[in-house]
Amino acid sequence: MNVTQISDYGEFGLIKHLTENFPLTNASSLKGIGDDAAVIDNGELKTLVTTDILLEGIHFNLEYVPLRHLGYKAAVVNFSDIYAMNGKPEQIVVSLGVSARFSVEMLEELYDGIRLACQTYGVDLVGGDTSSSLTGLTISVTCIGSAKQEEIVYRNGAKDGDLLCVSGNLGAAYLGLQLLERERIALKGNTQSQPDFAGFEYLLQRQLKPEARKDIIDELKAAAIMPTAMMDVSDGLSSEVMHICTQSGVGCRL
Amino acid sequence: MNVTQISDYGEFGLIKHLTENFPLTNASSLKGIGDDAAVIDNGELKTLVTTDILLEGIHFNLEYVPLRHLGYKAAVVNFSDIYAMNGKPEQIVVSLGVSARFSVEMLEELYDGIRLACQTYGVDLVGGDTSSSLTGLTISVTCIGSAKQEEIVYRNGAKDGDLLCVSGNLGAAYLGLQLLERERIALKGNTQSQPDFAGFEYLLQRQLKPEARKDIIDELKAAAIMPTAMMDVSDGLSSEVMHICTQSGVGCRL
Repeated sequence: MNVTQISDYGEFGLIKHLTENFPLTNASSLKGIGDDAAVIDNGELKTLVTTDILLEGIHFNLEYVPLRHLGYKAAVVNFSDIYAMNGKPEQIVVSLGVSARFSVEMLEELYDGIRLACQTYGVDLVGGDTSSSLTGLTISVTCIGSAKQEEIVYRNGAKDGDLLCVSGNLGAAYLGLQLLERERIALKGNTQSQPDFAGFEYLLQRQLKPEARKDIIDELKAAAIMPTAMMDVSDGLSSEVMHICTQSGVGCRL
Repeated sequence: MNVTQISDYGEFGLIKHLTENFPLTNASSLKGIGDDAAVIDNGELKTLVTTDILLEGIHFNLEYVPLRHLGYKAAVVNFSDIYAMNGKPEQIVVSLGVSARFSVEMLEELYDGIRLACQTYGVDLVGGDTSSSLTGLTISVTCIGSAKQEEIVYRNGAKDGDLLCVSGNLGAAYLGLQLLERERIALKGNTQSQPDFAGFEYLLQRQLKPEARKDIIDELKAAAIMPTAMMDVSDGLSSEVMHICTQSGVGCRL
């Protein structure tokens, strides 16, 4: 067997390579891989589906991420993908892999965060799968949303002359992470001191308890503005602008 | 913080405990936690949603599970949950956590198995999330299906005098696992010999490449038989019969 390193492809190249021989065959599959969410036909209302997986050591470090915040974030990052299609998140299913060092109280904290996110955004938890894990905490969330066909905003609709806008503060969550990492290293083995985050509350909030921009969707609707293209920023401005430009067949000036 | 061991609750007790304060608030959430799949209202056709997570070391051992079989199984166990609601699986999203020891060719094998399952059952891959992992392979699949409201079969409809039927061979997959484990231990460190599974092909097939019982759903429909209750067997006969009896408020004689 040949051995090609995953890094030779990069994340998007890899996904494209692995999924290119999966043609859509069901009439209900309106949009497959390649946008913030898949679109499924159910008559008047379309169903939107998105999924994100969070793995311990990759997406979070339990040394400084409270479980309540982690549960909140795991849910909200999925809501954000539905909003990025101009849809309304309505249901989530949550799958957990939990190692033996977790207590029931720790899982209660995690679910408290998921519950707060659900209450805040009006989403129902409708299912899931819970398994033991030999390898740290795994959280996989799939979110189901709805939208009218004519209201769905894809990545591929940008036109020449469109205005390119970003909501929120790019880099704030990254700075929050830098702060947490700096204090973790500075205080390693020191049980006497507490990290000092005074004045940086906003940055920590962006990292630990990010919000999905339901407010933007609501404001655009109130102002009767329908974007030609929209996308959730995960990897950074340049990466996401490239996605929109490539899929829309346009260039841009920043 | 109190420390309650997860084992004090057991899997079902734990899920019940963690999710009991999640009331359904959206009109579209017809059925939440507690059956083989959630049911979401979209007008005439209802959407069914189910999810399963497979973790390395818990659900599979890559020493003897070929990646192609693993991909097939990860998809099919989800289709099975949709069939157990008397629905039709139509879309899946697949999230992967992949450690650095995996090559592109290994992931191709995994996706070949997912593709074969999708082709065999007429299901479309419409999305997913791929992440690096520090901790072995994680596969989380969510399946979306559809059904007419009047055709959905829940666990809670069993009536006095109903006949209780099981499709397939209970224990066959377990025996297949025993065989694989026996040969793994017997041949440990021995690179000269090959395991001998002659005559046991059926048992291995049930463990490594299980099928979802679409045929049963089709036959019941052809015979105009509508079951009063139905359930996918995951944990064994006694456990699943208890679920159906408890939710239906009936007893049973086996």
